[in-house]
Amino acid sequence: MGKVICVGLGPGDPDLMSVRADRLVRAATHVAFFRKAGRQGQARRIVGGMLRADVVEHPMDYPVTTEIAFDSADYNSRLASFYDDWTQRLLTLAADHDVVVLCEGDPFFYGSFMHLHVRLQGRCAVEVVPGITGMTGCWHATGIPIAWGDDVLSVLMGTLPEEELLRHMQGSHALAIMKTGRNLPRVRRALAAAGRLDEAWLVERGTMPGQRVARLSEVGDDDCPYFAIVLVHGHGRRPL
Amino acid sequence: MGKVICVGLGPGDPDLMSVRADRLVRAATHVAFFRKAGRQGQARRIVGGMLRADVVEHPMDYPVTTEIAFDSADYNSRLASFYDDWTQRLLTLAADHDVVVLCEGDPFFYGSFMHLHVRLQGRCAVEVVPGITGMTGCWHATGIPIAWGDDVLSVLMGTLPEEELLRHMQGSHALAIMKTGRNLPRVRRALAAAGRLDEAWLVERGTMPGQRVARLSEVGDDDCPYFAIVLVHGHGRRPL
Repeated sequence: MGKVICVGLGPGDPDLMSVRADRLVRAATHVAFFRKAGRQGQARRIVGGMLRADVVEHPMDYPVTTEIAFDSADYNSRLASFYDDWTQRLLTLAADHDVVVLCEGDPFFYGSFMHLHVRLQGRCAVEVVPGITGMTGCWHATGIPIAWGDDVLSVLMGTLPEEELLRHMQGSHALAIMKTGRNLPRVRRALAAAGRLDEAWLVERGTMPGQRVARLSEVGDDDCPYFAIVLVHGHGRRPL
Repeated sequence: MGKVICVGLGPGDPDLMSVRADRLVRAATHVAFFRKAGRQGQARRIVGGMLRADVVEHPMDYPVTTEIAFDSADYNSRLASFYDDWTQRLLTLAADHDVVVLCEGDPFFYGSFMHLHVRLQGRCAVEVVPGITGMTGCWHATGIPIAWGDDVLSVLMGTLPEEELLRHMQGSHALAIMKTGRNLPRVRRALAAAGRLDEAWLVERGTMPGQRVARLSEVGDDDCPYFAIVLVHGHGRRPL
Protein backbone atom coordinates (compact mmCIF):
# COMPACT_ATOMS: atom_id res chain seq x y z
CA MET A 1 0.00 0.00 0.00
CA GLY A 2 1.33 3.40 -0.99
CA LYS A 3 0.45 6.91 0.08
CA VAL A 4 -0.70 10.08 -1.59
CA ILE A 5 1.87 12.71 -0.67
CA CYS A 6 0.99 16.29 -1.55
CA VAL A 7 4.11 18.41 -1.70
CA GLY A 8 3.95 22.20 -1.38
CA LEU A 9 6.50 23.54 -3.87
CA GLY A 10 6.59 27.10 -2.54
CA PRO A 11 6.35 30.35 -4.52
CA GLY A 12 8.27 29.27 -7.62
CA ASP A 13 12.03 29.35 -7.08
CA PRO A 14 12.98 25.64 -6.63
CA ASP A 15 15.59 26.75 -4.08
CA LEU A 16 12.70 27.88 -1.83
CA MET A 17 11.13 24.43 -1.68
CA SER A 18 11.54 22.78 1.73
CA VAL A 19 14.29 20.24 2.28
CA ARG A 20 11.56 17.60 2.70
CA ALA A 21 9.76 18.63 -0.51
CA ASP A 22 13.03 18.59 -2.45
CA ARG A 23 13.82 15.08 -1.23
CA LEU A 24 10.31 13.75 -2.02
CA VAL A 25 10.20 15.29 -5.50
CA ARG A 26 13.61 13.91 -6.46
CA ALA A 27 12.72 10.40 -5.24
CA ALA A 28 9.19 10.27 -6.73
CA THR A 29 8.34 7.45 -9.14
CA HIS A 30 4.80 8.78 -9.80
CA VAL A 31 3.91 12.47 -9.86
CA ALA A 32 0.52 14.09 -10.46
CA PHE A 33 -0.08 17.81 -11.01
CA PHE A 34 -2.89 20.17 -11.98
CA ARG A 35 -2.65 22.16 -15.19
CA LYS A 36 -4.75 23.94 -17.75
CA ALA A 37 -5.23 21.51 -20.65
CA GLY A 38 -2.51 22.09 -23.22
CA ARG A 39 -0.21 23.95 -20.83
CA GLN A 40 2.78 22.63 -18.93
CA GLY A 41 1.45 24.00 -15.67
CA GLN A 42 3.24 26.01 -13.02
CA ALA A 43 3.77 23.13 -10.57
CA ARG A 44 5.38 20.94 -13.23
CA ARG A 45 7.53 23.84 -14.38
CA ILE A 46 8.92 24.42 -10.87
CA VAL A 47 10.26 20.85 -10.65
CA GLY A 48 11.82 20.91 -14.14
CA GLY A 49 15.19 19.12 -13.94
CA MET A 50 14.46 17.56 -10.55
CA LEU A 51 12.47 14.46 -11.52
CA ARG A 52 13.86 10.95 -12.00
CA ALA A 53 14.35 9.90 -15.61
CA ASP A 54 11.89 7.01 -15.15
CA VAL A 55 9.17 9.01 -13.34
CA VAL A 56 5.58 8.39 -14.48
CA GLU A 57 3.72 11.69 -14.92
CA HIS A 58 -0.01 12.12 -14.36
CA PRO A 59 -1.17 15.55 -15.53
CA MET A 60 -4.58 16.46 -14.09
CA ASP A 61 -6.12 18.74 -16.71
CA TYR A 62 -8.77 21.12 -15.34
CA PRO A 63 -11.99 20.45 -17.24
CA VAL A 64 -13.17 24.05 -17.59
CA THR A 65 -11.69 27.44 -17.21
CA THR A 66 -13.29 30.59 -18.48
CA GLU A 67 -15.98 29.42 -20.91
CA ILE A 68 -18.57 28.66 -18.24
CA ALA A 69 -19.84 30.98 -15.51
CA PHE A 70 -17.98 30.43 -12.30
CA ASP A 71 -21.05 30.01 -10.10
CA SER A 72 -23.16 27.96 -12.51
CA ALA A 73 -24.42 24.45 -11.70
CA ASP A 74 -22.67 23.19 -14.82
CA TYR A 75 -19.27 24.53 -13.72
CA ASN A 76 -19.80 23.08 -10.26
CA SER A 77 -20.76 19.60 -11.51
CA ARG A 78 -17.94 19.42 -14.04
CA LEU A 79 -15.39 20.33 -11.38
CA ALA A 80 -16.89 17.92 -8.86
CA SER A 81 -16.70 15.06 -11.41
CA PHE A 82 -13.11 16.01 -12.19
CA TYR A 83 -12.10 15.80 -8.52
CA ASP A 84 -14.13 12.59 -7.99
CA ASP A 85 -12.44 11.02 -11.00
CA TRP A 86 -8.92 11.93 -9.89
CA THR A 87 -9.64 10.75 -6.38
CA GLN A 88 -10.39 7.31 -7.83
CA ARG A 89 -7.33 7.37 -10.04
CA LEU A 90 -5.04 8.37 -7.15
CA LEU A 91 -6.53 5.63 -4.96
CA THR A 92 -5.81 3.08 -7.69
CA LEU A 93 -2.25 4.33 -8.11
CA ALA A 94 -1.65 4.49 -4.36
CA ALA A 95 -2.67 0.84 -4.01
CA ASP A 96 0.72 -0.03 -5.51
CA HIS A 97 3.10 2.84 -4.75
CA ASP A 98 3.49 6.35 -3.38
CA VAL A 99 2.14 9.13 -5.59
CA VAL A 100 3.55 12.63 -5.17
CA VAL A 101 1.06 15.40 -5.98
CA LEU A 102 2.90 18.60 -6.92
CA CYS A 103 1.28 21.84 -5.71
CA GLU A 104 2.43 25.45 -6.00
CA GLY A 105 2.65 27.44 -2.79
CA ASP A 106 1.17 25.85 0.31
CA PRO A 107 -1.34 23.03 -0.36
CA PHE A 108 -3.67 24.04 2.52
CA PHE A 109 -3.87 27.71 1.46
CA TYR A 110 -6.45 28.02 -1.37
CA GLY A 111 -4.91 24.99 -3.13
CA SER A 112 -6.72 22.72 -5.63
CA PHE A 113 -5.37 19.67 -3.81
CA MET A 114 -7.75 20.44 -0.93
CA HIS A 115 -10.62 19.14 -3.12
CA LEU A 116 -8.81 15.80 -3.44
CA HIS A 117 -7.73 15.83 0.20
CA VAL A 118 -11.32 16.03 1.45
CA ARG A 119 -12.33 13.17 -0.87
CA LEU A 120 -9.38 10.93 0.08
CA GLN A 121 -10.09 11.14 3.83
CA GLY A 122 -10.25 7.67 5.38
CA ARG A 123 -9.68 5.93 2.03
CA CYS A 124 -5.87 5.88 1.89
CA ALA A 125 -2.87 7.30 3.71
CA VAL A 126 -2.39 10.98 2.85
CA GLU A 127 0.55 13.18 3.78
CA VAL A 128 0.78 16.91 3.11
CA VAL A 129 4.05 18.88 3.11
CA PRO A 130 3.69 22.63 3.81
CA GLY A 131 5.22 25.17 1.46
CA ILE A 132 6.00 28.89 1.37
CA THR A 133 2.85 30.58 0.03
CA GLY A 134 2.91 32.45 -3.28
CA MET A 135 1.97 35.67 -1.49
CA THR A 136 5.05 35.31 0.76
CA GLY A 137 7.21 35.07 -2.36
CA CYS A 138 5.48 38.21 -3.66
CA TRP A 139 6.08 40.33 -0.57
CA HIS A 140 9.74 39.28 -0.63
CA ALA A 141 9.85 40.37 -4.28
CA THR A 142 8.94 43.91 -3.13
CA GLY A 143 11.81 43.83 -0.60
CA ILE A 144 9.49 45.30 2.07
CA PRO A 145 8.12 43.53 5.18
CA ILE A 146 4.37 42.92 4.90
CA ALA A 147 3.20 43.30 8.52
CA TRP A 148 4.56 44.68 11.81
CA GLY A 149 3.53 44.73 15.47
CA ASP A 150 -0.25 44.67 15.79
CA ASP A 151 -1.01 45.04 12.06
CA VAL A 152 -4.06 43.18 10.78
CA LEU A 153 -3.27 41.38 7.52
CA SER A 154 -6.22 40.38 5.36
CA VAL A 155 -6.03 38.01 2.43
CA LEU A 156 -8.72 38.86 -0.13
CA MET A 157 -9.81 37.47 -3.49
CA GLY A 158 -10.38 39.86 -6.38
CA THR A 159 -13.57 37.90 -7.10
CA LEU A 160 -15.28 39.34 -3.98
CA PRO A 161 -18.00 42.01 -4.28
CA GLU A 162 -16.64 45.55 -4.30
CA GLU A 163 -18.30 46.53 -0.99
CA GLU A 164 -16.74 43.57 0.74
CA LEU A 165 -13.30 44.38 -0.68
CA LEU A 166 -13.72 47.97 0.45
CA ARG A 167 -14.74 47.03 3.98
CA HIS A 168 -11.64 44.88 4.46
CA MET A 169 -9.36 47.41 2.81
CA GLN A 170 -10.59 50.07 5.24
CA GLY A 171 -10.38 47.82 8.30
CA SER A 172 -7.02 46.12 7.75
CA HIS A 173 -3.47 47.47 7.80
CA ALA A 174 -1.83 45.05 5.38
CA LEU A 175 -3.49 43.44 2.35
CA ALA A 176 -2.75 40.58 -0.02
CA ILE A 177 -5.24 40.35 -2.89
CA MET A 178 -5.21 37.25 -5.06
CA LYS A 179 -7.22 36.23 -8.16
CA THR A 180 -6.73 39.62 -9.77
CA GLY A 181 -6.63 39.47 -13.62
CA ARG A 182 -10.01 40.52 -14.98
CA ASN A 183 -11.03 41.57 -11.47
CA LEU A 184 -8.33 44.26 -11.34
CA PRO A 185 -10.65 47.20 -12.17
CA ARG A 186 -12.88 46.30 -9.19
CA VAL A 187 -9.85 45.83 -6.91
CA ARG A 188 -8.46 49.18 -8.04
CA ARG A 189 -11.78 51.01 -7.44
CA ALA A 190 -12.05 49.53 -3.95
CA LEU A 191 -8.44 50.47 -3.12
CA ALA A 192 -9.06 54.02 -4.35
CA ALA A 193 -12.27 54.29 -2.28
CA ALA A 194 -10.32 53.07 0.77
CA GLY A 195 -7.56 55.61 0.12
CA ARG A 196 -4.99 52.84 -0.30
CA LEU A 197 -4.34 52.88 -4.07
CA ASP A 198 -1.08 54.83 -3.88
CA GLU A 199 0.41 52.27 -1.47
CA ALA A 200 -0.48 49.25 -3.63
CA TRP A 201 1.96 47.03 -5.51
CA LEU A 202 1.33 44.44 -8.21
CA VAL A 203 3.62 41.41 -8.19
CA GLU A 204 3.74 38.80 -10.92
CA ARG A 205 5.83 35.61 -10.79
CA GLY A 206 7.35 36.47 -7.38
CA THR A 207 10.74 34.65 -6.93
CA MET A 208 10.50 33.24 -10.50
CA PRO A 209 12.24 34.10 -13.77
CA GLY A 210 10.41 37.06 -15.30
CA GLN A 211 9.44 38.39 -11.86
CA ARG A 212 7.69 41.75 -12.16
CA VAL A 213 7.14 44.24 -9.35
CA ALA A 214 5.31 47.49 -10.09
CA ARG A 215 3.30 50.20 -8.40
CA LEU A 216 -0.32 49.30 -9.13
CA SER A 217 -0.92 52.89 -10.23
CA GLU A 218 1.54 52.29 -13.08
CA VAL A 219 -0.15 49.12 -14.36
CA GLY A 220 -3.05 49.11 -16.85
CA ASP A 221 -6.24 47.16 -16.16
CA ASP A 222 -5.63 44.96 -19.20
CA ASP A 223 -2.06 44.16 -18.15
CA CYS A 224 -2.68 41.84 -15.20
CA PRO A 225 -2.71 38.03 -15.24
CA TYR A 226 -5.06 36.11 -12.93
CA PHE A 227 -2.23 34.89 -10.70
CA ALA A 228 -0.68 38.33 -10.10
CA ILE A 229 -0.99 39.49 -6.48
CA VAL A 230 -1.74 42.98 -5.22
CA LEU A 231 -0.04 43.92 -1.95
CA VAL A 232 -0.40 46.78 0.49
CA HIS A 233 2.24 46.73 3.23
CA GLY A 234 1.44 47.44 6.87
CA HIS A 235 3.41 50.01 8.84
CA GLY A 236 2.47 48.90 12.40
CA ARG A 237 3.95 49.75 15.74
CA ARG A 238 7.72 49.88 15.82
CA PRO A 239 10.34 51.40 18.14
CA LEU A 240 11.86 54.51 16.53
CA MET B 1 32.84 43.21 2.29
CA GLY B 2 30.32 40.66 3.58
CA LYS B 3 26.55 40.65 3.69
CA VAL B 4 23.88 40.35 6.32
CA ILE B 5 21.78 37.38 5.29
CA CYS B 6 18.54 36.88 7.19
CA VAL B 7 17.35 33.31 6.86
CA GLY B 8 13.73 32.36 7.47
CA LEU B 9 13.84 29.02 9.31
CA GLY B 10 10.18 28.13 8.86
CA PRO B 11 7.73 26.88 11.50
CA GLY B 12 10.12 24.73 13.54
CA ASP B 13 10.78 21.36 11.90
CA PRO B 14 14.28 21.76 10.34
CA ASP B 15 13.10 19.60 7.44
CA LEU B 16 10.68 22.41 6.51
CA MET B 17 13.46 24.96 6.06
CA SER B 18 14.03 25.88 2.41
CA VAL B 19 16.84 24.26 0.48
CA ARG B 20 18.52 27.70 0.33
CA ALA B 21 18.12 28.29 4.07
CA ASP B 22 19.51 24.85 4.86
CA ARG B 23 22.58 25.49 2.70
CA LEU B 24 23.21 28.95 4.19
CA VAL B 25 22.82 27.78 7.80
CA ARG B 26 25.21 24.85 7.32
CA ALA B 27 27.85 27.06 5.67
CA ALA B 28 27.60 30.00 8.08
CA THR B 29 30.74 31.11 9.93
CA HIS B 30 28.88 33.80 11.92
CA VAL B 31 25.29 33.48 13.11
CA ALA B 32 23.19 35.97 15.06
CA PHE B 33 19.79 35.25 16.59
CA PHE B 34 17.24 36.87 18.89
CA ARG B 35 16.44 35.31 22.24
CA LYS B 36 15.09 36.11 25.65
CA ALA B 37 18.10 36.63 27.91
CA GLY B 38 19.00 33.37 29.61
CA ARG B 39 17.07 31.22 27.12
CA GLN B 40 18.42 29.29 24.14
CA GLY B 41 15.84 30.84 21.87
CA GLN B 42 13.58 29.17 19.31
CA ALA B 43 15.64 30.13 16.23
CA ARG B 44 18.85 28.72 17.70
CA ARG B 45 17.03 25.56 18.78
CA ILE B 46 15.75 24.91 15.24
CA VAL B 47 19.30 24.83 13.81
CA GLY B 48 20.68 22.59 16.57
CA GLY B 49 23.06 20.08 14.96
CA MET B 50 23.29 22.00 11.67
CA LEU B 51 25.97 24.58 12.49
CA ARG B 52 29.68 24.30 11.70
CA ALA B 53 31.86 23.34 14.64
CA ASP B 54 33.82 26.60 14.31
CA VAL B 55 30.80 28.90 13.92
CA VAL B 56 30.86 32.14 15.92
CA GLU B 57 27.52 32.74 17.65
CA HIS B 58 26.07 36.18 18.38
CA PRO B 59 23.00 35.91 20.61
CA MET B 60 20.93 39.11 20.52
CA ASP B 61 19.26 39.22 23.94
CA TYR B 62 16.01 41.22 24.01
CA PRO B 63 16.47 43.99 26.59
CA VAL B 64 12.98 43.90 28.10
CA THR B 65 10.08 41.55 28.11
CA THR B 66 7.17 41.79 30.47
CA GLU B 67 8.36 44.10 33.27
CA ILE B 68 7.64 47.32 31.39
CA ALA B 69 4.35 48.38 29.78
CA PHE B 70 4.32 47.57 26.11
CA ASP B 71 3.30 51.02 24.93
CA SER B 72 5.45 53.07 27.33
CA ALA B 73 8.14 55.49 26.16
CA ASP B 74 10.66 53.55 28.22
CA TYR B 75 9.88 50.26 26.46
CA ASN B 76 10.05 51.99 23.11
CA SER B 77 13.40 53.65 23.75
CA ARG B 78 15.00 50.53 25.19
CA LEU B 79 13.96 48.50 22.17
CA ALA B 80 15.07 51.21 19.74
CA SER B 81 18.53 51.33 21.39
CA PHE B 82 18.74 47.56 21.24
CA TYR B 83 18.05 47.53 17.49
CA ASP B 84 20.38 50.51 16.89
CA ASP B 85 23.14 48.76 18.80
CA TRP B 86 22.79 45.48 16.91
CA THR B 87 22.63 47.31 13.60
CA GLN B 88 26.07 48.73 14.39
CA ARG B 89 27.43 45.39 15.52
CA LEU B 90 26.15 43.61 12.39
CA LEU B 91 27.66 46.34 10.19
CA THR B 92 31.01 45.85 11.91
CA LEU B 93 30.84 42.08 11.50
CA ALA B 94 29.68 42.34 7.87
CA ALA B 95 32.70 44.50 7.03
CA ASP B 96 34.75 41.29 7.17
CA HIS B 97 32.41 38.37 6.41
CA ASP B 98 28.85 37.23 5.84
CA VAL B 99 26.64 37.11 8.92
CA VAL B 100 23.61 34.83 8.91
CA VAL B 101 20.73 36.07 11.05
CA LEU B 102 18.49 33.17 12.08
CA CYS B 103 14.76 33.94 12.20
CA GLU B 104 11.79 31.69 12.93
CA GLY B 105 9.01 31.59 10.35
CA ASP B 106 9.19 34.17 7.58
CA PRO B 107 11.41 37.20 8.34
CA PHE B 108 9.04 39.70 6.62
CA PHE B 109 5.93 38.50 8.48
CA TYR B 110 5.91 40.14 11.95
CA GLY B 111 9.60 39.27 12.43
CA SER B 112 12.03 41.07 14.76
CA PHE B 113 14.61 41.19 11.98
CA MET B 114 12.46 43.80 10.22
CA HIS B 115 13.66 46.35 12.81
CA LEU B 116 17.26 45.64 11.80
CA HIS B 117 16.38 45.47 8.11
CA VAL B 118 14.97 48.99 8.09
CA ARG B 119 18.08 50.29 9.89
CA LEU B 120 20.55 48.48 7.60
CA GLN B 121 19.06 49.91 4.39
CA GLY B 122 21.75 51.49 2.23
CA ARG B 123 24.50 50.74 4.75
CA CYS B 124 25.48 47.21 3.72
CA ALA B 125 24.32 44.41 1.44
CA VAL B 126 21.30 42.63 2.93
CA GLU B 127 19.68 39.46 1.67
CA VAL B 128 16.49 37.94 3.07
CA VAL B 129 15.45 34.31 2.54
CA PRO B 130 11.69 33.64 2.85
CA GLY B 131 10.41 30.89 5.13
CA ILE B 132 7.19 29.01 5.83
CA THR B 133 5.30 31.07 8.43
CA GLY B 134 4.61 29.70 11.87
CA MET B 135 0.86 29.97 11.24
CA THR B 136 1.23 27.75 8.15
CA GLY B 137 2.91 25.12 10.30
CA CYS B 138 0.01 25.44 12.76
CA TRP B 139 -2.75 24.93 10.20
CA HIS B 140 -0.90 21.87 8.90
CA ALA B 141 -0.76 20.60 12.48
CA THR B 142 -4.59 20.59 12.52
CA GLY B 143 -4.63 18.56 9.28
CA ILE B 144 -7.33 20.85 7.86
CA PRO B 145 -6.98 23.37 5.00
CA ILE B 146 -7.21 26.96 6.26
CA ALA B 147 -8.95 28.76 3.36
CA TRP B 148 -10.91 27.82 0.20
CA GLY B 149 -12.30 29.58 -2.84
CA ASP B 150 -13.24 33.16 -1.99
CA ASP B 151 -12.63 32.91 1.76
CA VAL B 152 -11.24 36.00 3.45
CA LEU B 153 -8.39 35.09 5.82
CA SER B 154 -7.49 37.62 8.49
CA VAL B 155 -4.37 37.52 10.60
CA LEU B 156 -5.00 39.15 13.97
CA MET B 157 -2.95 39.83 17.08
CA GLY B 158 -4.42 38.95 20.48
CA THR B 159 -3.14 42.34 21.68
CA LEU B 160 -5.82 44.18 19.65
CA PRO B 161 -8.83 45.78 21.36
CA GLU B 162 -11.78 43.43 21.77
CA GLU B 163 -14.10 45.41 19.45
CA GLU B 164 -11.52 45.28 16.69
CA LEU B 165 -11.02 41.54 17.14
CA LEU B 166 -14.78 41.06 17.04
CA ARG B 167 -15.24 43.10 13.87
CA HIS B 168 -12.66 41.02 11.98
CA MET B 169 -13.95 37.75 13.40
CA GLN B 170 -17.44 38.60 12.13
CA GLY B 171 -16.25 39.82 8.73
CA SER B 172 -13.71 37.11 7.83
CA HIS B 173 -14.15 33.45 7.02
CA ALA B 174 -10.79 32.13 8.20
CA LEU B 175 -8.77 33.46 11.13
CA ALA B 176 -5.24 33.14 12.45
CA ILE B 177 -4.73 34.84 15.80
CA MET B 178 -1.20 35.29 17.09
CA LYS B 179 0.23 36.76 20.34
CA THR B 180 -2.28 34.89 22.45
CA GLY B 181 -0.95 33.95 25.95
CA ARG B 182 -2.31 36.44 28.48
CA ASN B 183 -4.59 37.85 25.78
CA LEU B 184 -6.48 34.56 25.45
CA PRO B 185 -9.49 35.59 27.60
CA ARG B 186 -10.10 38.60 25.31
CA VAL B 187 -9.64 36.47 22.18
CA ARG B 188 -12.06 33.90 23.56
CA ARG B 189 -14.71 36.52 24.44
CA ALA B 190 -14.49 38.04 20.96
CA LEU B 191 -14.75 34.61 19.29
CA ALA B 192 -17.79 33.78 21.42
CA ALA B 193 -19.43 37.11 20.56
CA ALA B 194 -18.78 36.41 16.86
CA GLY B 195 -20.28 32.93 17.21
CA ARG B 196 -16.98 31.31 16.17
CA LEU B 197 -15.73 29.85 19.47
CA ASP B 198 -16.81 26.27 18.75
CA GLU B 199 -14.83 26.26 15.48
CA ALA B 200 -11.59 27.52 17.05
CA TRP B 201 -8.41 25.52 17.55
CA LEU B 202 -5.33 26.29 19.64
CA VAL B 203 -2.00 25.13 18.24
CA GLU B 204 1.25 25.21 20.15
CA ARG B 205 4.66 24.28 18.65
CA GLY B 206 3.18 23.41 15.24
CA THR B 207 5.52 20.95 13.37
CA MET B 208 7.86 20.80 16.42
CA PRO B 209 8.49 18.18 19.11
CA GLY B 210 5.78 18.60 21.74
CA GLN B 211 3.26 19.86 19.17
CA ARG B 212 -0.15 20.35 20.75
CA VAL B 213 -3.43 20.73 18.88
CA ALA B 214 -6.63 21.24 20.87
CA ARG B 215 -10.11 22.64 20.53
CA LEU B 216 -9.92 26.09 22.10
CA SER B 217 -13.05 25.27 24.13
CA GLU B 218 -11.03 22.55 25.88
CA VAL B 219 -8.11 24.80 26.86
CA GLY B 220 -8.03 26.91 30.01
CA ASP B 221 -7.19 30.61 29.91
CA ASP B 222 -4.09 30.05 32.04
CA ASP B 223 -2.82 27.25 29.80
CA CYS B 224 -1.73 29.22 26.73
CA PRO B 225 1.79 30.41 25.93
CA TYR B 226 2.30 33.71 24.06
CA PHE B 227 3.42 31.99 20.87
CA ALA B 228 0.41 29.63 20.62
CA ILE B 229 -1.82 30.38 17.63
CA VAL B 230 -5.61 30.28 17.49
CA LEU B 231 -7.08 29.16 14.16
CA VAL B 232 -10.56 29.16 12.67
CA HIS B 233 -10.73 27.36 9.32
CA GLY B 234 -12.69 28.72 6.36
CA HIS B 235 -15.19 26.54 4.51
CA GLY B 236 -15.46 28.57 1.26
CA ARG B 237 -16.94 27.72 -2.08
CA ARG B 238 -16.18 24.20 -3.28
CA PRO B 239 -17.66 21.85 -5.86
CA LEU B 240 -19.68 19.12 -4.15
